[in-house]
Amino acid sequence: MPETHAVRRDALRKALVEKGLDAVLVTRLVNVRYLTGFTGSNGALLVTPDAEVLTTDGRYITQSAAQAPDVERLITTAIATDLVERAATNGRVRIGFEAHDVTVEAHGRLTGVTENAELLAVTGAVEALRAVKDDDEIELIRRACRAADDAVAGLWETRLAGRTEKEIRNDLEARMLAAGADAASFETIVASGPNSAVPHHRPTGRVVEPGDLLKLDFGALVEGYHSDMTRTVVLGEPAQWQRDLHALVAEAQQAGIDALRAGATSAELDRAARDVITAAGHGEDYTHSLGHGVGLEIHEAPSLRKDGSDTLADRMPVTVEPGVYLPGRGGVRIEDLLVVRPDGPDSLTTTTKELLVLA
Amino acid sequence: MPETHAVRRDALRKALVEKGLDAVLVTRLVNVRYLTGFTGSNGALLVTPDAEVLTTDGRYITQSAAQAPDVERLITTAIATDLVERAATNGRVRIGFEAHDVTVEAHGRLTGVTENAELLAVTGAVEALRAVKDDDEIELIRRACRAADDAVAGLWETRLAGRTEKEIRNDLEARMLAAGADAASFETIVASGPNSAVPHHRPTGRVVEPGDLLKLDFGALVEGYHSDMTRTVVLGEPAQWQRDLHALVAEAQQAGIDALRAGATSAELDRAARDVITAAGHGEDYTHSLGHGVGLEIHEAPSLRKDGSDTLADRMPVTVEPGVYLPGRGGVRIEDLLVVRPDGPDSLTTTTKELLVLA
Repeated sequence: MPETHAVRRDALRKALVEKGLDAVLVTRLVNVRYLTGFTGSNGALLVTPDAEVLTTDGRYITQSAAQAPDVERLITTAIATDLVERAATNGRVRIGFEAHDVTVEAHGRLTGVTENAELLAVTGAVEALRAVKDDDEIELIRRACRAADDAVAGLWETRLAGRTEKEIRNDLEARMLAAGADAASFETIVASGPNSAVPHHRPTGRVVEPGDLLKLDFGALVEGYHSDMTRTVVLGEPAQWQRDLHALVAEAQQAGIDALRAGATSAELDRAARDVITAAGHGEDYTHSLGHGVGLEIHEAPSLRKDGSDTLADRMPVTVEPGVYLPGRGGVRIEDLLVVRPDGPDSLTTTTKELLVLA
Repeated sequence: MPETHAVRRDALRKALVEKGLDAVLVTRLVNVRYLTGFTGSNGALLVTPDAEVLTTDGRYITQSAAQAPDVERLITTAIATDLVERAATNGRVRIGFEAHDVTVEAHGRLTGVTENAELLAVTGAVEALRAVKDDDEIELIRRACRAADDAVAGLWETRLAGRTEKEIRNDLEARMLAAGADAASFETIVASGPNSAVPHHRPTGRVVEPGDLLKLDFGALVEGYHSDMTRTVVLGEPAQWQRDLHALVAEAQQAGIDALRAGATSAELDRAARDVITAAGHGEDYTHSLGHGVGLEIHEAPSLRKDGSDTLADRMPVTVEPGVYLPGRGGVRIEDLLVVRPDGPDSLTTTTKELLVLA
C-alpha cells in the first residue's frame, strides 16, 4: 500500500512544519514500518518537506526495495548518522528526533555528525498518528482477533483437565497459527488455579484440574497487527466465590465498554470500571490499569489508566480488561478489543463472556 | 538460582567501584532479569556497594517476590526515578546509568529528580558480564538448541513439496514447542526457491516445489535462553550450481569455526570465513556479518563482524553463519551455535551440515 504510506508521511510532514522543523528523523522501527512498509530489523527514515530517505543495511537490499519502492533507499551501516549528514548537506537545519527512542548514547553520535544540525526532541508524533487507524488497519486487527477467537473455540472443545499450562499454551498457539496468525502476538498467559491470581503469570508445568479457574490471555499477529483478549473459565462446577468474582469482573468490564466514546478521557474510562470493583470491596485486588491501544504494537497509545492523559477518538482500537486477583485462591480477568465508533464501540473480539464451565 | 544472581551482582559491584560510582541504575529489562531473575515487563534495579533495590509495578507483586526473593522490592509506577531518589537519600551520589538504554526523554526525567544525583553514562557493563556464560546458562542454551534440532529432524521426515512457506513455518514452530521450547526464539525464516536469496525473508504463501533451495533459519526459547540455527536443503535432485553454492558456504563456515578460540578478534573471525567466499568470486553476494553472541537475547555481545572490536573469551556462545545470495536464483546460509572452549569450540547445534536432498 505505497499510497497509504505516502498519506501517513504527509500527515507527519504537516506536524513537522507546525513545529518549525526542517526534517524529522524517525528511528523507532515500528514507526519506520508505519511510514514506509519496511519491516526489517534495522533502519531509519528521514522525512523532509519534499522528500524522504530510508536507510537500512545490506541484509535488506531486496526486501526494502520490495516493501518501500516509493522512497529513496540508502544502504549503509551508519543508519541514523548518515541521515543527519544528508539532512545537513545544504546548510543549517533543525532536525526533530524521537526523544522517546533515541538513547543517550545514540544521541551523542547524532550530535557529533555535524555542527550544521540542531537536534530537537520530538516525542510521540508518529505514535499519535498511529493511535487512529485506517480501514485497512482495522481489518487486519479484526483478522488477528478472529484467529484468536477461532483458536480458543477449538481449544474449548478439547479436554483441558489433566494437561499442563504449557501444554495448553502450545495447543492454543498452534491453533492460532492454523487459523491464519503469523505468530502469537505476545507471550501467551495460561494461568490455572492459584496461578490465576498472578496477573501476568507465565505458563508452568502445573496440571490443570477440576475446580480450577483457568485464565487465558493471548492474541494473534496478522501482517504486523496484534490482537489481545482474555477469558477466564472454570473447570467443573464453579464454587460460589468463583461465580461471584466472574460476575463482578464482567460487570466492571461492561461499565468500561459502555464508557467508550470519542472524547472520553483515560481517567474517566478507568474510573468507570474501577468504581464497580471498588464498590464491591475489591479495589485493592485490581492492581493494574483498564486497557491500552493495540496495533503494530501490542501496547500503544492511548493508555487507559487512572493517571492517564489520553483522550479517545473515533477509530481507536483499545482493550478493556479489568481483573480481580485473590492471592493464593485465584483471579479473573475479562478482556475485549474494541474500536471506538460514533455509534458505540465495535467489538473485534467475538468470543462469549459467559462463565464457561469446561471439562 | 538466587546465589547465581548474587554472584552476578557482585561482579557488577566490582565494576561500579572501579569506575568510582556510588551506584548503578540498571534499566534494561534483560539486564534486570540477568541480575535478579525477575522476568516482568516493567522494572529497574539499583545496585549499590552494599544493597540492591528492585522496582516494578502492581502487576508483578507476586511474581517479583517469587523470582527475586533475595533483593529488596519496591512497588511503584515511578520505576527508575524512585531509584534515583532512593540512591540520593543520604546526600550527593554518582550514579551510573545505562546510556545505551535510557532514552533522551527518560534521561530528562532522571536528571529532574534531585540535584544530589550526578548521572554518568555507563555502557554495556552488564552486557559484558553476560557475554561469558556460566554452566547453567550453557545448559539452557544447549536445551534450546536441542529443541530446534529435534524439531527440524521431525520436519524433514515429512513431505515438504506442495506446502507453503507459512505452513512449513507453522509445522516447524509447533514441533519446537512439542520438543520443549517455550516459544520460537525469533521470527522463523522459511525461504524457498528465489526467496532463499533474501537473507531475512519472511514466510509467504509461496508453494515449495521440486528444484527449490529451502533455507530455514530458526531457534527455540527455553527459560529465557535462545538458540539460533540455519540449514539450507534442496528439494529433489540438486542442480550443479546449488551443490557448488552449498559446498562453498559449508567451506566458509568451517573456516569460521576453525578460527573460534579465546583471544580471536571479531575482525579475524569474520575474515576467516569471508576470505573463502571472496576467493570464489562471491564477496559481493555475502552481504552480512559472520555471527553474534546468543543468550538472554537472540543477538548479544560479542558481535562478529569485519569492523567489530570484540574479542572472544572462553564460555562465549556465538553463531557462525556465512551465506551467499544470488538474487532471483537462490541463496545458501549455514549456521551453528558454538561455545568457545580451551580445547576448541563445542557445537551446541548437532544437525548434519551435509546438503540434504528432500521430498
